[in-house]
Amino acid sequence: KQTYNVVVLPGDGIGPEVVEQATRVLELISSKSTTFSINLKSYDFGGCAIDSAGKPLPDDTLAACKEADAILMGSVGGPKWGVGKVRPEQGLLALRKELDLYANIRPCLFPSESLLSHSPLKPEVAKGVSFIVVRELVKGLYFGDRQEANLDDPSSDGAAYDTMVYNKFDVERITKLASYLALQSNPPAPLHSIDKANVLATSRLWRRVVQDTVDSQFASRGITVDHSLVDSASMVMVSNPRKLNGIVLTENMFGDILSDESSVIPGALGLLPSASLSGLPDGKGKCNGLYEPIHGSAPDIAGKGIANPVGTILSAAMLLRYSLNQGELADKVEAAVRKVLDAKDIGGLELRTADLGGKHGSKDVGDQVVAVLESL
Amino acid sequence: KQTYNVVVLPGDGIGPEVVEQATRVLELISSKSTTFSINLKSYDFGGCAIDSAGKPLPDDTLAACKEADAILMGSVGGPKWGVGKVRPEQGLLALRKELDLYANIRPCLFPSESLLSHSPLKPEVAKGVSFIVVRELVKGLYFGDRQEANLDDPSSDGAAYDTMVYNKFDVERITKLASYLALQSNPPAPLHSIDKANVLATSRLWRRVVQDTVDSQFASRGITVDHSLVDSASMVMVSNPRKLNGIVLTENMFGDILSDESSVIPGALGLLPSASLSGLPDGKGKCNGLYEPIHGSAPDIAGKGIANPVGTILSAAMLLRYSLNQGELADKVEAAVRKVLDAKDIGGLELRTADLGGKHGSKDVGDQVVAVLESL
Ligand SMILES: CC(C)[C@H](C(=O)O)[C@@H](O)C(=O)O
Ligand SMILES: CC(C)[C@H](C(=O)O)[C@@H](O)C(=O)O
Repeated sequence: KQTYNVVVLPGDGIGPEVVEQATRVLELISSKSTTFSINLKSYDFGGCAIDSAGKPLPDDTLAACKEADAILMGSVGGPKWGVGKVRPEQGLLALRKELDLYANIRPCLFPSESLLSHSPLKPEVAKGVSFIVVRELVKGLYFGDRQEANLDDPSSDGAAYDTMVYNKFDVERITKLASYLALQSNPPAPLHSIDKANVLATSRLWRRVVQDTVDSQFASRGITVDHSLVDSASMVMVSNPRKLNGIVLTENMFGDILSDESSVIPGALGLLPSASLSGLPDGKGKCNGLYEPIHGSAPDIAGKGIANPVGTILSAAMLLRYSLNQGELADKVEAAVRKVLDAKDIGGLELRTADLGGKHGSKDVGDQVVAVLESL
Repeated sequence: KQTYNVVVLPGDGIGPEVVEQATRVLELISSKSTTFSINLKSYDFGGCAIDSAGKPLPDDTLAACKEADAILMGSVGGPKWGVGKVRPEQGLLALRKELDLYANIRPCLFPSESLLSHSPLKPEVAKGVSFIVVRELVKGLYFGDRQEANLDDPSSDGAAYDTMVYNKFDVERITKLASYLALQSNPPAPLHSIDKANVLATSRLWRRVVQDTVDSQFASRGITVDHSLVDSASMVMVSNPRKLNGIVLTENMFGDILSDESSVIPGALGLLPSASLSGLPDGKGKCNGLYEPIHGSAPDIAGKGIANPVGTILSAAMLLRYSLNQGELADKVEAAVRKVLDAKDIGGLELRTADLGGKHGSKDVGDQVVAVLESL
């Protein structure tokens, strides 16, 4: 029986509460499987690690993450650590770099059609939206040379700079990854590559390498790609988001903005999962990854047991799919979540947390998902 | 009697058609004024200038723009010039730099409440949205050092970079301009500054200088400022855009993305104006500016006389307000446009162009605006 080691980073704020419901799902799957077991172990990361170890990514946490088959995270940060020299998000950026988590994957779709009315978009605009944002995560403006302004020296002009850097290898590997994701649909999903090639040198590189990689390695398997400018994409995402259905492929900074923009379409941030991968999910080889809900640590509701665990449970589903090669089990978890989101309790109330207008707690939702999975 | 010289750059595609309706408005105002006259003169710019002079910003066009009190532009570009070494947008970037048009101003509001149903957002989300995006326009990633990738040399790793650069002066002057705009409301509009200070050195500079400038020069006049991250702002703009009501202040690249994102809220790109200013609109001194609708050259409908001229007419209103110091006349033009958008013709049809579901042409809309203005 194979053992998968999954590192759990509950993090700060509501992180531990939502992670708890997702680990219940993974534990159930582990206990029912005849071919593998999942070994879960928690480590400090983020604000709580600053408190306990003086830095957001302690050495033992990093070592465990490097060894692991996959990492499940809650969320990090909070006002307590917001302003200091040592901040939780530095741990996140360091983890991305250390593990070479070069591909951030953010699905934008309604986990259930019944949620359509929660979107800020008109139903006829939001209906049927289904795309995955693939964001390059370890290059670009985030990791290029930078210089802080010296504002305390009156003789300085206070100049600062950041550098956006890409090379051919960076663009090629993220294009390959996006193409493998596209191949998981039948027919393959179209790629929509987003850049600013009318201004930026890195975008001209991006556009050409994306096109060349698709032409030389994936066109024969039915993959197509179109290119648009980031300003235009940010409009289309609101005015006609179905146009982006398929895979939206873009660089780090643009991906940060566009994936967050997309995340409000399904109506509640608490619903959405994400994955950050280091390998290539082509079915061969190991693909370590960090899985986390897209929402923040929400300190205002932390400890109350009312946070929506769906985004974290769906992150665990992505973990099963990409790092553990258990696509069918991932489908089952997603189906169970959908069933719970559509269910009513005995009083006719929806089985939902407060962010979706319901009255249930994190654990109630977790209980239901586990119960549905038990019965499958 | 004072004479204002306004350079007109009709440009490509639908540019000349929409500009024609706006110049009629300016000519009417000129002929009715007892204190000033407006002298309009057209020059080649953009694709048509590439055809006639081999470059998008010919020398005589640039010289005239530098001398002018203001510039009214249609739109530039089109598939004909999209791919060449010499492209229309290079003319636009050169003009911004040569005239030091450091502040791009993009109002996001419904020119008439009757347009609410055209928004992709639900009416209850879109209702009452009213902010102005102030985008820094001559620094940042657009004008820093860059290096193109060398993809044809197999021994090269194909690295490319772009540099995002800001100094204290740049941030201070755009903050001042935003503050003057805020002071035009009573009470002053709040400033919402957008950056990525958790990652970028230029954003940390930005945040501090924005705050310092407001604290030292504008807080006493009632201006307040808050700071948010660009990823978060791109969400709020869709999920709860009224939260941004006031002035949205940001750097060049973020402003490109966010201003376009905002522009789909009012339901039709053809409605919206923009200004790019070089001076400080504090009521003293000259403030040259380039005024243009935010829409593109729309080659597919060019020459048909059906393009919406409202964005260009409202750009002419901004021109009156900021470069000619004629705020009251600007108000009148805006009121006339609102009246026309709300009017029905004898058959009960709305007096609108096709993009707003109407059946009228550019000239019909121009005729009506002119007629309303005649009667004021
Ligand atoms: C916390 C921050 C550095 C991070 C980013 O910008 O990448 C976050 O916004 C994200 O998208 O995961
Ligand atoms: C044409 C292009 C260079 C330009 C920009 O990115 O600034 C345009 O998108 C705009 O916003 O005016």
